[in-house]
Amino acid sequence: SSSTRILIKGGTVVNAHHQQVADVYVEDGIIVSMQPNIKVGDEVTVLDATGKFVMPGGIDPHTHLAMEFMGTETIDDFFSGQAAALAGGTTMHIDFVIPVNGNLVAGFEAYENKSRNSCMDYGFHVAITKWDEGVSKDMEKLVKEKGINSFKFFLAYKGSLMVTDDLLLEGLKRCKSLGALAMVHAENGDAVFEGQKRMIDLGITGPEGHALSRPPVLEGEATARAIRLARFVNTPLYVVHVMSVDAMDEIAKARKSGQKVIGEPVVSGLILDDHWLWDPDFTIASKYVMSPPIRPVGHGKALQDALSTGILQLVGTDHCTFNSTQKALGVDDFRKIPNGVNGLEERMHLIWDTMVGSGQISSTDFVRITSTECARIFNIYPRKGAILPGSDADIIILNPNSSYEISSKSHHSRSDTNVYEGRRVKGKVEVTIAGGRIVWENEELKVVQGSGKYIEMPPFSYLFDGIEKSDANYLSSLRAPVKRVKI
Amino acid sequence: SSSTRILIKGGTVVNAHHQQVADVYVEDGIIVSMQPNIKVGDEVTVLDATGKFVMPGGIDPHTHLAMEFMGTETIDDFFSGQAAALAGGTTMHIDFVIPVNGNLVAGFEAYENKSRNSCMDYGFHVAITKWDEGVSKDMEKLVKEKGINSFKFFLAYKGSLMVTDDLLLEGLKRCKSLGALAMVHAENGDAVFEGQKRMIDLGITGPEGHALSRPPVLEGEATARAIRLARFVNTPLYVVHVMSVDAMDEIAKARKSGQKVIGEPVVSGLILDDHWLWDPDFTIASKYVMSPPIRPVGHGKALQDALSTGILQLVGTDHCTFNSTQKALGVDDFRKIPNGVNGLEERMHLIWDTMVGSGQISSTDFVRITSTECARIFNIYPRKGAILPGSDADIIILNPNSSYEISSKSHHSRSDTNVYEGRRVKGKVEVTIAGGRIVWENEELKVVQGSGKYIEMPPFSYLFDGIEKSDANYLSSLRAPVKRVKI
Amino acid sequence: SSSTRILIKGGTVVNAHHQQVADVYVEDGIIVSMQPNIKVGDEVTVLDATGKFVMPGGIDPHTHLAMEFMGTETIDDFFSGQAAALAGGTTMHIDFVIPVNGNLVAGFEAYENKSRNSCMDYGFHVAITKWDEGVSKDMEKLVKEKGINSFKFFLAYKGSLMVTDDLLLEGLKRCKSLGALAMVHAENGDAVFEGQKRMIDLGITGPEGHALSRPPVLEGEATARAIRLARFVNTPLYVVHVMSVDAMDEIAKARKSGQKVIGEPVVSGLILDDHWLWDPDFTIASKYVMSPPIRPVGHGKALQDALSTGILQLVGTDHCTFNSTQKALGVDDFRKIPNGVNGLEERMHLIWDTMVGSGQISSTDFVRITSTECARIFNIYPRKGAILPGSDADIIILNPNSSYEISSKSHHSRSDTNVYEGRRVKGKVEVTIAGGRIVWENEELKVVQGSGKYIEMPPFSYLFDGIEKSDANYLSSLRAPVKRVKI
Amino acid sequence: SSSTRILIKGGTVVNAHHQQVADVYVEDGIIVSMQPNIKVGDEVTVLDATGKFVMPGGIDPHTHLAMEFMGTETIDDFFSGQAAALAGGTTMHIDFVIPVNGNLVAGFEAYENKSRNSCMDYGFHVAITKWDEGVSKDMEKLVKEKGINSFKFFLAYKGSLMVTDDLLLEGLKRCKSLGALAMVHAENGDAVFEGQKRMIDLGITGPEGHALSRPPVLEGEATARAIRLARFVNTPLYVVHVMSVDAMDEIAKARKSGQKVIGEPVVSGLILDDHWLWDPDFTIASKYVMSPPIRPVGHGKALQDALSTGILQLVGTDHCTFNSTQKALGVDDFRKIPNGVNGLEERMHLIWDTMVGSGQISSTDFVRITSTECARIFNIYPRKGAILPGSDADIIILNPNSSYEISSKSHHSRSDTNVYEGRRVKGKVEVTIAGGRIVWENEELKVVQGSGKYIEMPPFSYLFDGIEKSDANYLSSLRAPVKRVKI
Ligand SMILES: [Zn+2]
Ligand SMILES: [Zn+2]
Ligand SMILES: [Zn+2]
Ligand SMILES: [Zn+2]
Ligand SMILES: [Zn+2]
Ligand SMILES: [Zn+2]
Ligand SMILES: [Zn+2]
Ligand SMILES: [Zn+2]
Repeated sequence: SSSTRILIKGGTVVNAHHQQVADVYVEDGIIVSMQPNIKVGDEVTVLDATGKFVMPGGIDPHTHLAMEFMGTETIDDFFSGQAAALAGGTTMHIDFVIPVNGNLVAGFEAYENKSRNSCMDYGFHVAITKWDEGVSKDMEKLVKEKGINSFKFFLAYKGSLMVTDDLLLEGLKRCKSLGALAMVHAENGDAVFEGQKRMIDLGITGPEGHALSRPPVLEGEATARAIRLARFVNTPLYVVHVMSVDAMDEIAKARKSGQKVIGEPVVSGLILDDHWLWDPDFTIASKYVMSPPIRPVGHGKALQDALSTGILQLVGTDHCTFNSTQKALGVDDFRKIPNGVNGLEERMHLIWDTMVGSGQISSTDFVRITSTECARIFNIYPRKGAILPGSDADIIILNPNSSYEISSKSHHSRSDTNVYEGRRVKGKVEVTIAGGRIVWENEELKVVQGSGKYIEMPPFSYLFDGIEKSDANYLSSLRAPVKRVKI
Repeated sequence: SSSTRILIKGGTVVNAHHQQVADVYVEDGIIVSMQPNIKVGDEVTVLDATGKFVMPGGIDPHTHLAMEFMGTETIDDFFSGQAAALAGGTTMHIDFVIPVNGNLVAGFEAYENKSRNSCMDYGFHVAITKWDEGVSKDMEKLVKEKGINSFKFFLAYKGSLMVTDDLLLEGLKRCKSLGALAMVHAENGDAVFEGQKRMIDLGITGPEGHALSRPPVLEGEATARAIRLARFVNTPLYVVHVMSVDAMDEIAKARKSGQKVIGEPVVSGLILDDHWLWDPDFTIASKYVMSPPIRPVGHGKALQDALSTGILQLVGTDHCTFNSTQKALGVDDFRKIPNGVNGLEERMHLIWDTMVGSGQISSTDFVRITSTECARIFNIYPRKGAILPGSDADIIILNPNSSYEISSKSHHSRSDTNVYEGRRVKGKVEVTIAGGRIVWENEELKVVQGSGKYIEMPPFSYLFDGIEKSDANYLSSLRAPVKRVKI
Repeated sequence: SSSTRILIKGGTVVNAHHQQVADVYVEDGIIVSMQPNIKVGDEVTVLDATGKFVMPGGIDPHTHLAMEFMGTETIDDFFSGQAAALAGGTTMHIDFVIPVNGNLVAGFEAYENKSRNSCMDYGFHVAITKWDEGVSKDMEKLVKEKGINSFKFFLAYKGSLMVTDDLLLEGLKRCKSLGALAMVHAENGDAVFEGQKRMIDLGITGPEGHALSRPPVLEGEATARAIRLARFVNTPLYVVHVMSVDAMDEIAKARKSGQKVIGEPVVSGLILDDHWLWDPDFTIASKYVMSPPIRPVGHGKALQDALSTGILQLVGTDHCTFNSTQKALGVDDFRKIPNGVNGLEERMHLIWDTMVGSGQISSTDFVRITSTECARIFNIYPRKGAILPGSDADIIILNPNSSYEISSKSHHSRSDTNVYEGRRVKGKVEVTIAGGRIVWENEELKVVQGSGKYIEMPPFSYLFDGIEKSDANYLSSLRAPVKRVKI
Repeated sequence: SSSTRILIKGGTVVNAHHQQVADVYVEDGIIVSMQPNIKVGDEVTVLDATGKFVMPGGIDPHTHLAMEFMGTETIDDFFSGQAAALAGGTTMHIDFVIPVNGNLVAGFEAYENKSRNSCMDYGFHVAITKWDEGVSKDMEKLVKEKGINSFKFFLAYKGSLMVTDDLLLEGLKRCKSLGALAMVHAENGDAVFEGQKRMIDLGITGPEGHALSRPPVLEGEATARAIRLARFVNTPLYVVHVMSVDAMDEIAKARKSGQKVIGEPVVSGLILDDHWLWDPDFTIASKYVMSPPIRPVGHGKALQDALSTGILQLVGTDHCTFNSTQKALGVDDFRKIPNGVNGLEERMHLIWDTMVGSGQISSTDFVRITSTECARIFNIYPRKGAILPGSDADIIILNPNSSYEISSKSHHSRSDTNVYEGRRVKGKVEVTIAGGRIVWENEELKVVQGSGKYIEMPPFSYLFDGIEKSDANYLSSLRAPVKRVKI
């Protein structure tokens, strides 16, 4: 069909390493060429991108679709969440497999089922919530047979997902040997538990109690701990949802000393602040409940600063939506408010508007932090994250002069609320091409259930380059064992 | 007897807040006056201190006498350790009560027995190694009835003394309510355990394996964690044996932000470096085994710098001596080498020589970090730590122009080794007066078993000033609970 | 007369090193004794201080009385400024001698004249604004004959007071050799000049332009520079009016590395923020114009934090008052608004209320940062800054339960405005004794022109302890000159 | 000729953004294609790169060829220096035009002459050493007509090249308006002058006096100053030859806060330490004299760490060679030793061996820091710095398994010494292609005088992206001028 041959003409084609005015020609889901003045026949759909930016589709490294959590399930499943993503210029996401009773393979299979109705490409991280021989073996199986190259450890959620330091150490070692990236949710779960009790004891049961129960100091603590344990094991670390200066400072310090630590801020943490949690309307306040919490004014700007110079590397969303009825489960106790905010549809627009629009970053930086760096970290570049001959045809056309207003009335998520309600952004994704097909054009989605592919992600990404050598260097530096005469 | 009336004439009397040339008159164990030209009768022992420094006797905040540890017992008991201390100008120490099967009161009573042969004043900290209602009640009893105002938590020694974060949080809260100071041994015990296995697996079984198994990054981690949890609870924290830049940096950062954190470097960490652990002679290498380990060159100087400007506050020793036969228990496995070094006798001389002698600190600073600040922190100032009318007559006379060489041949500890063997120091304690009696003079000890007193230390030291107000301030800053209309 | 013998009964006597309930007995301007239950005869004035704090009178290290500046002269001269100080519990201040055409001795003599009508004790710093042989000789004369032990260098005020780095280096060396403390006003004067032009070019001529023209980054720069040059010369440095996190961070870093740097925040910088400069009423906005500027919210609290743990050491005011008519000189151009705010009368109350009242510091800390540390730095302790036998009888009685509201209507400065207008403080100085005489009681001043004494301040304060030794250590560490064979 | 068509077969082609096994086909000096299995005809020179790395030729951002300095002239002119570069895998360099009596255009013309005998491509930075209307106009002319996009300011070399802060501010503003990058040599020249006098006064006249006279604290100072002034002006800054932790820390801090600062370490600073300057043989010691000095052990490794994670961005050499006779000019006075070390030939090998060989960085990182980032910063990417269709055919083939030993006996510089004498490196550039011609193969150079081209570098590189927007944002954030009613 005509949709399999597309020529995008005259736009500014932006890759993370370079941008230039050029045409892009797509055939059968693959980018065939990118250069000025491509000539094609009549059977090709031509899109005029003059004066617009042609960029790799966004990749969201951090989503939770169809997740059962806190006694309910996220309102967006793989189909609705992905449709929203495509309308916002994101063409791939990586979701988190939650094990079934700690069993990784069972969890993976459950997510295979959940994701059958996908309309865009996706991959998986897998959470580790307990430790035994079976978990260790499943990790190997997932890496070697199932396309998994990252595992996540929760230092919070005491009593459910939380792992202790000895488990984390085992996990880090196993990740290292498999070439898989260790990820952490970094908050001190014991202290969060204590903080929650404290708030309830003080009679603070509303959403503001959520923020107050787990202040930045607890995120700073867990980030510092995970980084140092990863250094001790000498394996790369990925810190998900960096929400505070406290955590960012630890990442900056580690990187300055040469440690391979990746920091992922999320859109809500970059752009919002915590005043919403004090809103007297519970429906409004509760929609901002996520963990770690959205922080007071100042944290977001500091995270933007660090992101702009590469101290932090990429932007996720932690998209994990619950509608207002679900949020109301915690009307009497903030501990029961399902944690999560939207963002999968809004991420690209908000980052463009906030950071490119303000001059903090360039358009090439934009591509790097929303797409390319994610593809590199999870080892699927340049198949994803680039507009290069041979890359998957996941492409967006962004009009820098177009504006729109974010609203739950018009968004594509199933949620009845939106944490960015009423926010006006400049720069609009007018066309999204996913897998070589135009799926978003003229404000209209053309998505097909089941058309999304599972993307296997191979281990030993660039972050593992040199680890063997540095281990060998370390060993030879020890001057040990010392030869000693027996007494 | 004549020894109960002493006049020290013409010395430079040094207090932490001021020094001046003056006489000091002592009667019945108490300083009666300190001013120029005191006139006394004939029955008074007169000591000429012209050209010398008259200073409060040292107080060592960190010792282990008669401690059962790692299958043996320290070679210095309360009598021999204290005698050594007095010969070195230290007139009080605070030892650590180790609970008996986790029982605090039983532990306290055991230490009451161990200390009956004391020849100088002493106090106790009490370690917390488990948590239950009994421990919590015992803490109260010890504080209210037994003169205890500090409790210690070990974040290392997995499987024996180590506590987890939830226990630490309970302990911090209890300490706060009792006005007792929480102390931590800060190393990540899970990672140390891992590090030890790693070394053994590498065939590194000698003393160098001790240092390699628990690098500074693990001390930095635990220090960062303890500080942040203490901040979360809003109670003061005392970090014992700060051995590395990593730990010191965390303390500096916390203090800059207004947190009440005390950092105690120890003499070995300030002055030595880890090259000794690589010594091919096991007897030499093993005597330097302590935890956290003595660090590579650079850490000690950085700790001295921080100490000189008040970023760190006082100097201890962690005096915990084992002779060469005991150290040999670990000849095939560094994990079995009893941990500990000497220092109780050498502390005052080494700090004077290294830090006053080099111009890094003044003589008033010297008094502050070796005596006064310890007395203030443990709430016994100005009874101890000062040469003021009414203070206990614990006094030393130091001759800045005299030198001597440290050696196990001449020291007063029972150990057959000394980690400072052969070191020459300038500045010599020529006279020590403890409890109003001359116990060290002309290189001779005149000590009496049982003459030392147990010093009760009241809770709510100056570190607790303002905590109630700052808690109240915090609460009023929350703007919570928010009033919300029920849905 | 009866006023020369005073007994203060039953108060909590606070020194920086200790507080206790005691009586204080004063005779002929000197504290004779401080101990419980002093018995005196009938001819003694007895003040009941039960339930109140008896503390050393405040010492303000930074004032400008009777200063000609920016085409006008401060409205408070030595008499009016000091009277206000006494009403607020400050019993000594140190003012800045401005040279006459660069001539130090001429400047000193001018200030001798200005200060003849003093009603309380005072000392002088002397500014250095040019460099030649005469200046160098005058410095020596002032130190050796006139009681000067500190010199100030302005890195701002291009074209008038500003000095360049080569002059600063000469000055630092000279200060070191004389045992005098080098002080700096730390802002980059070239950049300030540029910033002022920028604002005028933008049409921003009002008081807000003052703040915008000299942002914190310029204070951070000059602080970093002065600290490093002082380190290079190895002499102590005193940074006046630390107004920003940027400057404070530099001081903290230097101190951590063992450098002797003193940081003096001022009350306005600790307590106020810059929003006032945007006030649409010029009279209000202009009264907050001082240099460096009062900073945005956040800086003040960070300075309080650092002050509470000794990272910063003492509190000044930079009291430099102009009335609203004088401020109006700059109604069309912020560059012509005379720089300066009040504070000499309010300092003690504001620090007590803000920092002791909030639990950030203790009462002993309060004495340390408002009085004792200043006396130590300028080498007049314990004559000043202490309630000890032999100290000058400069004493205040503060009632912690009394409150009052600050207002230009009731203050004792001659200014018709007050930057703390309407602020209510808890904790009130009810009695001030200066030089042994009750000068403030029952809300009434009893001051006598000419009764204040000039306090000579000797060189080589405690900050100079060890400098010779550390220089010697440095030289011996160089391993130079290397012996080389001639080619 | 046949040399204009080259096929490189089967190597691992490394770009900064990606590496892959592919062939590279070159025609007429341009890379035509890069993909697997390129088929070509017979007339093509085929190079087998199986098992080897095919990478963009190095670009050295910092050289001094044919420079008159300190009374002599560097021994390497454009031809000899470039030949050496090519033998070491560097195919372009950027040299510094020194003005003639402050005149920029005259300086530029002089360097046009000096560079006529070039055998490889080159560009120019231009130094600014004075300020007047002519300089400002010349800057515009050079940028708009002569291909200059960077200007350098020396904060050291008092009395010759040094500029003061007001000149630097003017320069920064002018650079910003022209889209040219400001570069700084960051040492405090006044203090260096003082330090030199100090050493001479101490009788330390040998090379060790050079290091001692300008310690890291002076580099830290000037770096902090330049960074803050650039922030004040809001223009990008490039710090040349970052030699110390002190300077690197300032860059890291600035970048964390979002400032666009580029840090360029040089090979000597990364790899060497200062012990050589103490060598008793003057010929050896003197060859290590450069400014800022090579630092004590520790600095280099810290710079490597920062470089590995992008805190520092690219590696230069400051190649500035003088032979032993020239160095001997300072045999009696280190101030007269011509400053400079070699490195243009060794840079690529040393960085590969030290950083890739140790596992600190990957091969893509290697390309980034030795070539691509330089091309991006100076706005000539992807013409230079990439192996992409359309890029200049500047290519190297590196054999990771080949080794060689650096020696002045075999190097291609004209100097009779080499600061890396005797160092063995693993990883060897076996072929260098420059401008499409094989110029180094089989250990043989085939270079032609005059074949090198001057590369014009356009202004407004990616570092300028967003500056206008951020300026606009800043202005709109001021809330000024405030509207005020006239009094
Ligand atoms: Zn999470
Ligand atoms: Zn998540
Ligand atoms: Zn311990
Ligand atoms: Zn211990
Ligand atoms: Zn000033
Ligand atoms: Zn001033
Ligand atoms: Zn240079
Ligand atoms: Zn150079």
